[in-house]
Amino acid sequence: MRQRIITLITDFGERDEYAGVMKGVILRLNPSCQVVDVAHQISPQGITEASFILGNAYPYFPQGTIHVVVVDPGVGSSRRPIVLSADGHLFVGPDNGVFTTVYLKEGEKHTFELTNKQYFLPRISSTFQGRDVFAPVAAHLSLGLDPGELGREISDPVILDDFTPEISRNQIKGKVIHIDRFGNLITNISRQTFISFTRDKRFAIRVAYLVVNRVSDAYYEGKEGDLLALFSSSDWLEISMKNGNAKELLKVGKGEEIVVTECEPGRCGLL
Amino acid sequence: MRQRIITLITDFGERDEYAGVMKGVILRLNPSCQVVDVAHQISPQGITEASFILGNAYPYFPQGTIHVVVVDPGVGSSRRPIVLSADGHLFVGPDNGVFTTVYLKEGEKHTFELTNKQYFLPRISSTFQGRDVFAPVAAHLSLGLDPGELGREISDPVILDDFTPEISRNQIKGKVIHIDRFGNLITNISRQTFISFTRDKRFAIRVAYLVVNRVSDAYYEGKEGDLLALFSSSDWLEISMKNGNAKELLKVGKGEEIVVTECEPGRCGLL
Amino acid sequence: MRQRIITLITDFGERDEYAGVMKGVILRLNPSCQVVDVAHQISPQGITEASFILGNAYPYFPQGTIHVVVVDPGVGSSRRPIVLSADGHLFVGPDNGVFTTVYLKEGEKHTFELTNKQYFLPRISSTFQGRDVFAPVAAHLSLGLDPGELGREISDPVILDDFTPEISRNQIKGKVIHIDRFGNLITNISRQTFISFTRDKRFAIRVAYLVVNRVSDAYYEGKEGDLLALFSSSDWLEISMKNGNAKELLKVGKGEEIVVTECEPGRCGLL
Repeated sequence: MRQRIITLITDFGERDEYAGVMKGVILRLNPSCQVVDVAHQISPQGITEASFILGNAYPYFPQGTIHVVVVDPGVGSSRRPIVLSADGHLFVGPDNGVFTTVYLKEGEKHTFELTNKQYFLPRISSTFQGRDVFAPVAAHLSLGLDPGELGREISDPVILDDFTPEISRNQIKGKVIHIDRFGNLITNISRQTFISFTRDKRFAIRVAYLVVNRVSDAYYEGKEGDLLALFSSSDWLEISMKNGNAKELLKVGKGEEIVVTECEPGRCGLL
Repeated sequence: MRQRIITLITDFGERDEYAGVMKGVILRLNPSCQVVDVAHQISPQGITEASFILGNAYPYFPQGTIHVVVVDPGVGSSRRPIVLSADGHLFVGPDNGVFTTVYLKEGEKHTFELTNKQYFLPRISSTFQGRDVFAPVAAHLSLGLDPGELGREISDPVILDDFTPEISRNQIKGKVIHIDRFGNLITNISRQTFISFTRDKRFAIRVAYLVVNRVSDAYYEGKEGDLLALFSSSDWLEISMKNGNAKELLKVGKGEEIVVTECEPGRCGLL
Repeated sequence: MRQRIITLITDFGERDEYAGVMKGVILRLNPSCQVVDVAHQISPQGITEASFILGNAYPYFPQGTIHVVVVDPGVGSSRRPIVLSADGHLFVGPDNGVFTTVYLKEGEKHTFELTNKQYFLPRISSTFQGRDVFAPVAAHLSLGLDPGELGREISDPVILDDFTPEISRNQIKGKVIHIDRFGNLITNISRQTFISFTRDKRFAIRVAYLVVNRVSDAYYEGKEGDLLALFSSSDWLEISMKNGNAKELLKVGKGEEIVVTECEPGRCGLL
């Protein structure tokens, strides 16, 4: 059997042992699988952020990859541990909305609640199920276990509404869902949503106290310090500052409202 | 021979080349071993912290794993480089106390001073023995080298007293030895030490100006902002804040005293 | 064919998916190659810093390693994507100076512009060529592709002058090019440059308002708080503070001037 890949997305950071321990648990069960760090610096308890990162990353991995997401403020409570099968990938983690981006994108998918304890570690803590449940389950899946063996199929997984901007006849009201390391403000307005709305009309994108009237092709466009709107590498509308940091310029954070409006020539800056 | 795993715990961070260079040295000597990052954000020169992380992580890795720990403020001085063999694992690093948690936990163990230069890089710097000594030694061990070939056995390794709280008839005086990314204050009081002391008696856990009288089962218990005591995933007594950051609430740091006292009904909050 | 290694140096940090996505692209094209994180916390747009890290790291990796460097403020502009072959290693990234340390060190080398789109992802964004160009090219190289298949050879790559201090008859005028996690100030004055200049003469190294008159052998020398000059593990002149942080003591940043001067006995502290 070919080597399987297990990716990790967590809010564990790099100064604790948590991510390393998960790797140990996985490699003890399947020494030949390849564990790939995707992101461990998700904001603590940042479920939406984890879902955003996952949604942008998983399509680039090979079929058969197992993606483990552990951003889990409800660990030890009654929130369900699940495995999701979609588009040839498997996803393992808590049922708290972290898989929203996968649910919104994929057509056929199957979700199973993890209840079969024979695939967990023998002793399950109430504080670290990444180690005790998700890592061993991922390892067993990488050895060929069928997801259906892990528990019953469920049809009501938690889906966040963070990735669904409000669209009306004359505007899209979205928000900043992620701010990357460069200070770029990434919104929940997809390229497709934006283009369906604007078509050939003139438009204004308002963020904080500023308005942008065009979408640039790349970061290098414009003059030093210009505020740019462009589509991120994963096709979300993004606000960026030429050779600078849009977050610091605008003093905005996650959740900040972004409004796209149709506008008339000569009045586009006056929203 | 099956693929061997080498784990890395360092205070090198992720913005310098130091950890990457160690991986290069290892892979040049043994291209088929698997190098696993456990933690590189140990506080600079944080020997106790490194030992804490190692102690929590190594038991979850497969037998035969080689753990390299490089937190080494005395690099280039007369502190000894060592390899420790215990419980089927090997540990490579400086003899400055980083292996304390292994020494305290394991029964039979053997420590060898690294003196056989044929397993080092040809030129040994006085500033980066992670690259010049520990990485190549780990790689040779992963190829099957017997630890006894590296130097003579020693019986007096450095053992820190940080993991040994003071226990008297009516109290345990411990301290915060680690603060994790979520602001949880993790103490050097183990579950076993705590339970042996408290048995069925009432108790008070005092940290800074606050007192907690019960041990919770999971982070989700209590009300928003409550201070919780619970056992960490590695069975250390831990102070946590429900959906918050205990470190910021209490304004305490590593080394802060934690006292567990027996108390009488009605007087448990008045320590 | 033996397993090939691909290393990554980027300014992507660990909280976005960017580095993880590059790993996905690589592993989809070549599931058996080994992807090694060298450093992802390069300062945003820190081309000189990336080149410094690369220059210190690559010589320790096995022959045949492919090093991908993505610090790319000009992404989407006309800056050329290139592959460099030198000393048995391959280097993939933008032609913006990130490979300066390799060009300065290696004799025979060949640089090719990446123009053959059959080795890129089908759709090339203007914001993330690490994913769309550099990762797939590195994967194809790891499968045995000849660099010459990727485009025509060029002879005018960008070379930064940051690694070339000004040397005159009586002084070397260099600068701080990197500050590591421990606050050590690493300069662009190499051990060889320094020794050729000072030979057996007395010298003074001036940084900010302080002067150091000798080069120490290791960090542990001197008294607590002493400012030390020594050679870094990669043989650059470095200013360090005994058990402390030279950056914070001196309040200096990257680019700070460092001057080495010949001096007469009794007058070495009076520059």
